[in-house]
Amino acid sequence: MAPKNAFYAQSGGVTSVINASACGVIETARRHPDRIGKVYAGRNGIIGALREDLIDTSLESDHAIAALRHTPAGAFGSCRYKLKGLEENRAEYERLIEVFEAHDIGYFFYNGGGDSQDTAHKVSQLGEKMGYPITCIGVPKTVDNDLPVTDCCPGFGSVAKYVAVSTLEAGLDVRSMAETSTKLFVLEVMGRHAGWIAAAAALAAEEEGQPPHVILLPEVPLDQQRFLDKVRATVERHGYCVIVVSEGLMTADGKLLSDGGSKDAFGHTQLGGVAPVIARMCKDALGYKYHYAVADYLQRAARHIASKTDVDQAYALGAAAVEFALEGRNAVMPTIVRKRDEPYQWEIGCAALADVANVEQKLPPEYIAEDGMGVTEACLRYLRPLIQGEDYPPYRSGLPEYVRLKNASVPRLLGTTFELR
Amino acid sequence: MAPKNAFYAQSGGVTSVINASACGVIETARRHPDRIGKVYAGRNGIIGALREDLIDTSLESDHAIAALRHTPAGAFGSCRYKLKGLEENRAEYERLIEVFEAHDIGYFFYNGGGDSQDTAHKVSQLGEKMGYPITCIGVPKTVDNDLPVTDCCPGFGSVAKYVAVSTLEAGLDVRSMAETSTKLFVLEVMGRHAGWIAAAAALAAEEEGQPPHVILLPEVPLDQQRFLDKVRATVERHGYCVIVVSEGLMTADGKLLSDGGSKDAFGHTQLGGVAPVIARMCKDALGYKYHYAVADYLQRAARHIASKTDVDQAYALGAAAVEFALEGRNAVMPTIVRKRDEPYQWEIGCAALADVANVEQKLPPEYIAEDGMGVTEACLRYLRPLIQGEDYPPYRSGLPEYVRLKNASVPRLLGTTFELR
Repeated sequence: MAPKNAFYAQSGGVTSVINASACGVIETARRHPDRIGKVYAGRNGIIGALREDLIDTSLESDHAIAALRHTPAGAFGSCRYKLKGLEENRAEYERLIEVFEAHDIGYFFYNGGGDSQDTAHKVSQLGEKMGYPITCIGVPKTVDNDLPVTDCCPGFGSVAKYVAVSTLEAGLDVRSMAETSTKLFVLEVMGRHAGWIAAAAALAAEEEGQPPHVILLPEVPLDQQRFLDKVRATVERHGYCVIVVSEGLMTADGKLLSDGGSKDAFGHTQLGGVAPVIARMCKDALGYKYHYAVADYLQRAARHIASKTDVDQAYALGAAAVEFALEGRNAVMPTIVRKRDEPYQWEIGCAALADVANVEQKLPPEYIAEDGMGVTEACLRYLRPLIQGEDYPPYRSGLPEYVRLKNASVPRLLGTTFELR
Repeated sequence: MAPKNAFYAQSGGVTSVINASACGVIETARRHPDRIGKVYAGRNGIIGALREDLIDTSLESDHAIAALRHTPAGAFGSCRYKLKGLEENRAEYERLIEVFEAHDIGYFFYNGGGDSQDTAHKVSQLGEKMGYPITCIGVPKTVDNDLPVTDCCPGFGSVAKYVAVSTLEAGLDVRSMAETSTKLFVLEVMGRHAGWIAAAAALAAEEEGQPPHVILLPEVPLDQQRFLDKVRATVERHGYCVIVVSEGLMTADGKLLSDGGSKDAFGHTQLGGVAPVIARMCKDALGYKYHYAVADYLQRAARHIASKTDVDQAYALGAAAVEFALEGRNAVMPTIVRKRDEPYQWEIGCAALADVANVEQKLPPEYIAEDGMGVTEACLRYLRPLIQGEDYPPYRSGLPEYVRLKNASVPRLLGTTFELR
């Protein structure tokens, strides 16, 4: 009997190392042709399965697949699409079975964050509840670092490195301009609900007094007066102030700062951008000239400054997902288990999808400084190992050589179509 | 007779390689102890001279000075301060002579852009017009790449590389999200009057249709309808659209887009931020979900992704400035002369400060695409060599090892003070 094929898809916001996990999945599967047939990738995540829009990765050379390890973003396309519960939308599950049966798929690998692990968990119910035999393994990924159980999430370590390096570099810039010009620099980073990315900026400071001077986290509502007092004190003491702020920073009454209700020239509400709000707040109260940056996608796509630790873990987790499947495990997700802080030692662990789906891990209180505007040594001890090591992509004529796959479609076998909700 | 001391200072917005020029100046001066005494750096540019606030670089180790080559921003502090003309403010010039005489300074090296070369040019008049013997040499620097005569300006090549790499990486990210989420990405880069930095984003595209799809330059007033038509056509053809915009983009009636007259929640006018204005414009007209990034200081401080060509030129120009002075040249600035495009060949040339002071080199018409929203092959041919080569700084525990100098003050010899205008 021919071995079953595997389905692999990428889901949610992409990262600079999610393709390294794809590389781990596909290269490991290729080493077991007796157990796993072809690896079909979903074009744009689970949607590719629902639409029977599959990519035949067996048509990509070993060289191209290997290059995924140093290529950012989602090589097969990602999606923001959450499966409803089996009860609410049985049709979606029946469609998945229809497509999986048609293409002889017996393995399901889903690469994503909390929502995506929920999807993987639901698909695993195809087996128990609908009698379709399939092995479902989640592969963790999220720059937000908010998955439970695992020590960290692939994608985070590289964003952390990008944010720490950028804070260090911009801090030196502001310091040199402060005497006659810019005294305040605000860097906005990702993190709607969890402040892990903003916290990582703290790695830039070698000594007390070095940037970042203030870190504003989504876990701590902004106390405007205490914040302004700290900014003034910092400028008076050091001549300048560097602030790193999470996009999800809230007011005391639970409103997003970025949604300041501001209007543009055309009378439209301003969307996003907490950095300018914070910068103006300081300018109005303290009069300091400011600059601000919004890193947005640059931070999560910055493969050129990826953390080697992060890349290694992303690959290892993809490889482990396939090994778990071959061991007959089901409805699980490989995790990172920290054995030691320094030197960092880690190994692969295993979590039940039921335990990771939809759980959001925020910055614990013991990682947040007493004044709520910085992090503790315990937090730094946790973060330090995650940015260790450089893993530069190859360059050609001054630019990284990122791979663009052929992404050839698997011929459709079903005459049917499926309407997405 | 003991050799004269030298004064070196950094001026205007700093770059990721201005310290490489400082390294070239100081290391070259150290090789000629018979001709040049100590190199005194102005703390915060020319202000350091006016305040008699000098840094004794002879107290820095050779190792620390060598590390300037891979350290971004201004190690001695920069300033935004322009000398008035000799007629308007003779007191400033008399003060400079007072300080230079007290510290036996016979060489003046000023590292900056157009305004700063104007300052250097004025200081050179101390000799002719006020009888104080001093050799004045300018050292070019500006991310804006808007100095005349020279093939390019140190600092630009590295920003160009940063912007091209970031556009490539973010472009891959948006492409993977576009099916169900973000279809539009806007990257705001520096460039008040000249579009060189935005133009450099075009290096990211290997083939037609790859990001950036639209480049908005300060040289070309925005034609809103034609812009929106191009964005729609791009999304319909490729599924997503990446736009790179210069901070200095203007409306047809000469208003800055970034100064859209928009108000925030507190009723204050929004300062800066053309990216959100452009993104909302597209959202309102076409309905596309968008993300935007504002690179700001991150782009000009990003030493971690500097262009080796740029670093080599920055160092060579600093070294050449000292050699020019030793050859007895005066009131000049070393330049880059392009001998060949590919492979790039360049040599050091020489320009009179009178010819470079206050001249602003914009993007020439033949470098701007016919539709005004991109660049030509001639422009790419000019830009390509400038981002060639990587010149990574050394890393320790995951972060670049940038040097922080002692910056010990030279004891003041004058009892006098000087009030800056």
